[in-house]
Amino acid sequence: MADRPTQPVIVLVRPQLGENIGKAARAMLNFGLTEMRLVAPRDGWPNPSAGPAAAGADEVLERATAYEALSDAVSDCAHVYATTVRKRGVTKPVVTPQEAALEIHAASGGSAIVFGPERSGLETDEVALARAILTIPVNPDFASLNLAQAVILCAYEWSKMAGMEVPTAEELLPPAPQEELEGLVSHFEALLEPRNYFWPESRAAASRRTLRNMLTKPGWNSLEVRTLRGILSTLGKKKPGKRD
Amino acid sequence: MADRPTQPVIVLVRPQLGENIGKAARAMLNFGLTEMRLVAPRDGWPNPSAGPAAAGADEVLERATAYEALSDAVSDCAHVYATTVRKRGVTKPVVTPQEAALEIHAASGGSAIVFGPERSGLETDEVALARAILTIPVNPDFASLNLAQAVILCAYEWSKMAGMEVPTAEELLPPAPQEELEGLVSHFEALLEPRNYFWPESRAAASRRTLRNMLTKPGWNSLEVRTLRGILSTLGKKKPGKRD
Repeated sequence: MADRPTQPVIVLVRPQLGENIGKAARAMLNFGLTEMRLVAPRDGWPNPSAGPAAAGADEVLERATAYEALSDAVSDCAHVYATTVRKRGVTKPVVTPQEAALEIHAASGGSAIVFGPERSGLETDEVALARAILTIPVNPDFASLNLAQAVILCAYEWSKMAGMEVPTAEELLPPAPQEELEGLVSHFEALLEPRNYFWPESRAAASRRTLRNMLTKPGWNSLEVRTLRGILSTLGKKKPGKRD
Repeated sequence: MADRPTQPVIVLVRPQLGENIGKAARAMLNFGLTEMRLVAPRDGWPNPSAGPAAAGADEVLERATAYEALSDAVSDCAHVYATTVRKRGVTKPVVTPQEAALEIHAASGGSAIVFGPERSGLETDEVALARAILTIPVNPDFASLNLAQAVILCAYEWSKMAGMEVPTAEELLPPAPQEELEGLVSHFEALLEPRNYFWPESRAAASRRTLRNMLTKPGWNSLEVRTLRGILSTLGKKKPGKRD
């Protein structure tokens, strides 16, 4: 945590299945969260079903600790968010995962995001412990988010602001310089001209403009321009095996 | 779709477990997406394991249709996003789920987000079909996102913007649908094949992929595709005025 002071603790209250604890751990680590706390897990802790479901997120499970009550689990946290999907008769600020992530990054003092048991959700007394309610803006006609999914959406929003390394798919080559594009345009024109493509003369200017617009639109890089010129050269030649 | 023109189609390519199809359907409906397409699901379609895992998202499964090939599944889509987590040797724009959601909302023409099989992900040839790569910025040290989680993050980002007014970028013609691009690719290939462009055989697959990548990159509209096909027809003919 030392290097990531803004990382929120993920608190699972009375989770029922070890498998769901494992899946939540996996979802956390997918977005760089490593600090899990459990409140009165139904089947005790550690739970042998958690490991396989974590699919390799063992470091999260190994560091996870169990508490008897939510108040103990969040005693060192200055900012506690209680997640609910339903409306609650509680007068507290309601934030989205994105807003919570913003606040957590800006906060001094530790933060915790608290998730209730699989089916029932948090008790009213537990929600009362929190400073704010975190509600994921889910489809009101189909709001059955499972635990790991609720966790991953919160972790994802946090990581979006954490400046995590984005796996840039590839160092994209820059678009080819204009002179290479000119070469490509000329190559096209040189092939099309003797084939009467620009005929009649009254249409020639418009046709040339259309061609140029099409060829500048792609933003092809030098390699791609060279490939296309190779194709043009091929098309300009006669088919092999035919004598003429 | 009529009332939700910006809703992307979710395409699952060669999904292995019916359970995962069901979970993906649930994740979709959680954020209001209802349009699922399947490409060559391993155990056929419909799959009795999907229903229980969908946890009530039956309407998504009932409307889901199966296709033999990805190109068929996205033939009516102007904007195809291929999701990958790994680096790929493909030169295409790379977008985040958030950026994709913005584009999808602003787009004219249908969109599709394509997900690969559970373990292996999409094949290079399938990625080549797409206009852009969608990469979820996951923890690089623990990138094992499961299918439903990848789906839910994309659906979530889409739904975040679904209520928002998006300024339509410009009255531009939309990119041509995938089937018109296929026609263009085939036209190129038909001309190049007899001219031995794809020779030697060991280079053929790579050359075809490069060609396809080049031709999907521009985002040409139907008019432009038609113009280029006219050019190809012209180049395919013999030069006039020369008897042979």
